[in-house]
Amino acid sequence: MKNRRTFVPAWSDEPPAPGSYRSIFKWGAPDRFKHPDQRLYEMLKERLNLTDHDFAEKGPMGNEPVLLHNPPSLEGQHRQGLEAIVGKENLFTDDYSRLKYASGKTAEEAISLRQGIPGRTPDLVIHPRDRYDVERIVSYCNEHAIAVYVYGGGSSVNLGLMPVRGGVTLVMNTHMNRVLSFSETNQTITVEPGMMGPDYERILNNAPELLHAKRRYTGGHFPQSFEFSSVGGWIVTLGSGQESSYYGDMYQIVLSQEYVTPVGSFKTLDFPATATGPKVNDMMKGSEGAFGVLVGATLRVFRYMPETRRRFAFVFPSWQSAVEASREISQGEFGMPSVFRISDPEETDAVMKLYGVEGTVLDRIMGLRGFKTGERCLMLGAANGEKNFALNIRKQVRRICRSRGAIYLTGLPVKSWESGRYTDPYMREDLNDFGIIIDTLETPVTWEKLFTLHEQVRSFIKTRPHTVCLTHASHFYPQGTNLYFIFMARFSDPDEYKRFQEGIIDVIQKNGGSLSHHHGVGKMMAPWMEAHLGKTQMDVLRALKRHFDPNTIMNPGGTLSLDLAEGEANAVNRDT
Amino acid sequence: MKNRRTFVPAWSDEPPAPGSYRSIFKWGAPDRFKHPDQRLYEMLKERLNLTDHDFAEKGPMGNEPVLLHNPPSLEGQHRQGLEAIVGKENLFTDDYSRLKYASGKTAEEAISLRQGIPGRTPDLVIHPRDRYDVERIVSYCNEHAIAVYVYGGGSSVNLGLMPVRGGVTLVMNTHMNRVLSFSETNQTITVEPGMMGPDYERILNNAPELLHAKRRYTGGHFPQSFEFSSVGGWIVTLGSGQESSYYGDMYQIVLSQEYVTPVGSFKTLDFPATATGPKVNDMMKGSEGAFGVLVGATLRVFRYMPETRRRFAFVFPSWQSAVEASREISQGEFGMPSVFRISDPEETDAVMKLYGVEGTVLDRIMGLRGFKTGERCLMLGAANGEKNFALNIRKQVRRICRSRGAIYLTGLPVKSWESGRYTDPYMREDLNDFGIIIDTLETPVTWEKLFTLHEQVRSFIKTRPHTVCLTHASHFYPQGTNLYFIFMARFSDPDEYKRFQEGIIDVIQKNGGSLSHHHGVGKMMAPWMEAHLGKTQMDVLRALKRHFDPNTIMNPGGTLSLDLAEGEANAVNRDT
Repeated sequence: MKNRRTFVPAWSDEPPAPGSYRSIFKWGAPDRFKHPDQRLYEMLKERLNLTDHDFAEKGPMGNEPVLLHNPPSLEGQHRQGLEAIVGKENLFTDDYSRLKYASGKTAEEAISLRQGIPGRTPDLVIHPRDRYDVERIVSYCNEHAIAVYVYGGGSSVNLGLMPVRGGVTLVMNTHMNRVLSFSETNQTITVEPGMMGPDYERILNNAPELLHAKRRYTGGHFPQSFEFSSVGGWIVTLGSGQESSYYGDMYQIVLSQEYVTPVGSFKTLDFPATATGPKVNDMMKGSEGAFGVLVGATLRVFRYMPETRRRFAFVFPSWQSAVEASREISQGEFGMPSVFRISDPEETDAVMKLYGVEGTVLDRIMGLRGFKTGERCLMLGAANGEKNFALNIRKQVRRICRSRGAIYLTGLPVKSWESGRYTDPYMREDLNDFGIIIDTLETPVTWEKLFTLHEQVRSFIKTRPHTVCLTHASHFYPQGTNLYFIFMARFSDPDEYKRFQEGIIDVIQKNGGSLSHHHGVGKMMAPWMEAHLGKTQMDVLRALKRHFDPNTIMNPGGTLSLDLAEGEANAVNRDT
Repeated sequence: MKNRRTFVPAWSDEPPAPGSYRSIFKWGAPDRFKHPDQRLYEMLKERLNLTDHDFAEKGPMGNEPVLLHNPPSLEGQHRQGLEAIVGKENLFTDDYSRLKYASGKTAEEAISLRQGIPGRTPDLVIHPRDRYDVERIVSYCNEHAIAVYVYGGGSSVNLGLMPVRGGVTLVMNTHMNRVLSFSETNQTITVEPGMMGPDYERILNNAPELLHAKRRYTGGHFPQSFEFSSVGGWIVTLGSGQESSYYGDMYQIVLSQEYVTPVGSFKTLDFPATATGPKVNDMMKGSEGAFGVLVGATLRVFRYMPETRRRFAFVFPSWQSAVEASREISQGEFGMPSVFRISDPEETDAVMKLYGVEGTVLDRIMGLRGFKTGERCLMLGAANGEKNFALNIRKQVRRICRSRGAIYLTGLPVKSWESGRYTDPYMREDLNDFGIIIDTLETPVTWEKLFTLHEQVRSFIKTRPHTVCLTHASHFYPQGTNLYFIFMARFSDPDEYKRFQEGIIDVIQKNGGSLSHHHGVGKMMAPWMEAHLGKTQMDVLRALKRHFDPNTIMNPGGTLSLDLAEGEANAVNRDT
């Protein structure tokens, strides 16, 4: 029974007003919510140094209707030219469309939109019907030097789709969301880029009914944004799902791609391997709309065998033992688990609190074994594939974890994790409503540099009082893993937050991380690209940009830092 | 006991004369030979319509000393300039060096050299000592528009290192063959590109003694040319070894690379994955010296566990059942075998004959089961990795093969295959001595196109009477495999052979194959590149070529078809 005196913040349960700013920045479905539960609320107050008083009144909610003050600047002539291609019914200039399809899901955009401050917008929003529409649009825009942006699912967290130069935004998930072909023999499917995650997976899971297949298949790609991101977005940003350690990331899953660029259209080869020189297919992966528009993709699919899944969870005495066991598993040559995650001590403690482990028998067992709060670390995982293969992975994982002193927690914690795997982002609005920022940064790292990078990022974040930093590694390779940092704090002003975020990126980069393991670069991380790659390699990307896009119309204004003069990238970045 | 009346051709057991043409074109070590045994000899006579008489007298042997009639054309000034960089002791202009380091291992080169007809040669042969030498040489040559070619192990089968424009050839395996660093934590090794296969594998196998490691490692890369090819050559031509189905091909094994190009030097990122745009690392893989010179590479290494290897061999009633079982194995999600090969009926019959299976108990069992000569097909394989993982692969393979009607032959045939895995190329000289050409072409293929491609290539080859065509698939992926065609015949004139070879390439390409699965493109396959990739994609490669090599000095004269006008590529190709 709930204690009557317990204060519960008035978390918002109202779907955002239609046409409002909030309807744009709110995560996910308008009528779905996930509020912090009481345990999390208590923990937040303690860690962020807040009281119930701080949750008494909400800040700006963004429920006002969208109102832009810049009318579309493309002349009537161009509007007519583009309407002639797609039809009036597929071209929009209303304020709401222009802002909605200009917005991603960065913390910065949420803060601005909540205050009714719109970011950059396109002049026209176009919903192309097929690849031929895209060809004609790109050709028209190239001729008239009109910028072209592409909106897939809208889940970008790095200003990837921000229309810095106005122009047109192409919305891919309205019409271009179809299956183009399926080959059960080759185990591949070809789809249009606007197909959304749940449709993609549903079609493959139901392949016998929908594709005349003999078996059921899975795409194997389950990013946290799964429900609200598109296949095309996954590919052009080099996305990686929660089961990538087994199924691979999009870089590996995509077999071939079809693009429309200002200098022509092409479909890359669909051989599983070929020694015919550098592969154009690779050059397009991660190109983030800066070279051309993805209009079709052939992806590897996998057998859908949920019945063989074997789950496991362990708690380790220390971060070091958890990392070392993970490395041993990743290098052990018995196949990789699909889900595979380890949490650092701060994240582990948060999870233990949230799941009510404190004070239980398990907690006492851990205590007796000398596992201390602030040291112990959680591992979650699941193995897929053929039955004996999956069983053997769990067997080998157990052997390795026990040899590192871990306690087996059964597979139940993984089931809990699975049930909430896509819903945590819903809590962002609740926290934001009370002025708390929650954001993430993530990077790949080799095993050698993991401990230093983790320590240095945490040290930096902890220089700021009352700031939470939860870290996990969730994508594993024989040569390394990723580190995913979640930080939470109350910031008094957006500029302070911006400086804080930039400081973290600097620390990541200086300690052997990259700008992104699976979120892409967009326009937000672009200012670090040259330091990341070095000028000689940046010049190679710029040469490709010049080749594909001589008039700089494709996602211009800083994407991958390809088209901005020095200094300008930073300016775009700061001017959200 | 040998029948006294049996005729045995006088296979050559003499090491080639030092300084001779033969010493250049002979495969492998000068004093190692592998002659066709009597069974193979009898089969050759039957299949190629020859008699003992045809093996009575040898054709030209190429034992004459190399003599060039074109003196090096680079002026004394350039020779001095380059000597100043590497020292007199590392620069050569003698005829023998110039021809040796200009020659690869194509059938065409062997035919010409055997007749004392040298191909194109460089003006100077340079043995750079380290990456700094290479930087200075490339810079010097770029300034003076001198062509730069690179020689790794010299096993190219597509004129990859042919110095069409003269200039300098850099020999990488003389000095630049060292370990640069090793990380047991990351399971990576960084080496110079001139390290040869056996050294690379020996160092990794002996990592505890040589690299202060805790374990032994393997590179996992075993092409047939293993003993006489270099790590750098494997990378820049996208090589694939006989165990690639498990360990991956060079495209997958190489983690990062360091290049010297005319526009600057760089080392690519060594993250196991990163979502920071298109990867320059990928653009360099398979670049065949046309963008720059590889001076260092970091490769993934694997645990060396020969004790867990599990071998298996099967015979199938038909090509179709063998292919379908292979597909089921490749898509079965229990991990892949390392060695994994299937032979088509003609190759199977040849193997059965060579191993003396005809007339044995096994042969009778196959007969009773209805397995017919001309239909039955062999599968060989081995599984590696962690013990239970490898055992389970063999178990699943057995299950699948038996369900397709295959007979298990134990693992012994694989041991036989292993003992001869690198030595078959030695037989080429024996056959060539009597005017018989043996050559190969190979292509990747998706499962859907496999049967048609195989049939069409065989039909084409069989239009020529008395021509053997042995086919196997030896690199497997969930989405497809490769087809490797070995053809043998007596050709009266090299031009007829050339037309025949071109005809096969045309048929491969028209039926959904590529120009190469793992031999690269070089200058030989280059004329087909534009038809293979299409103009739009070729233009992307050309844009990179212009960027890296504005003065067209890097492996110029047709490599990957990047620097020749239409028509010119074919001319180079025909003018070996």
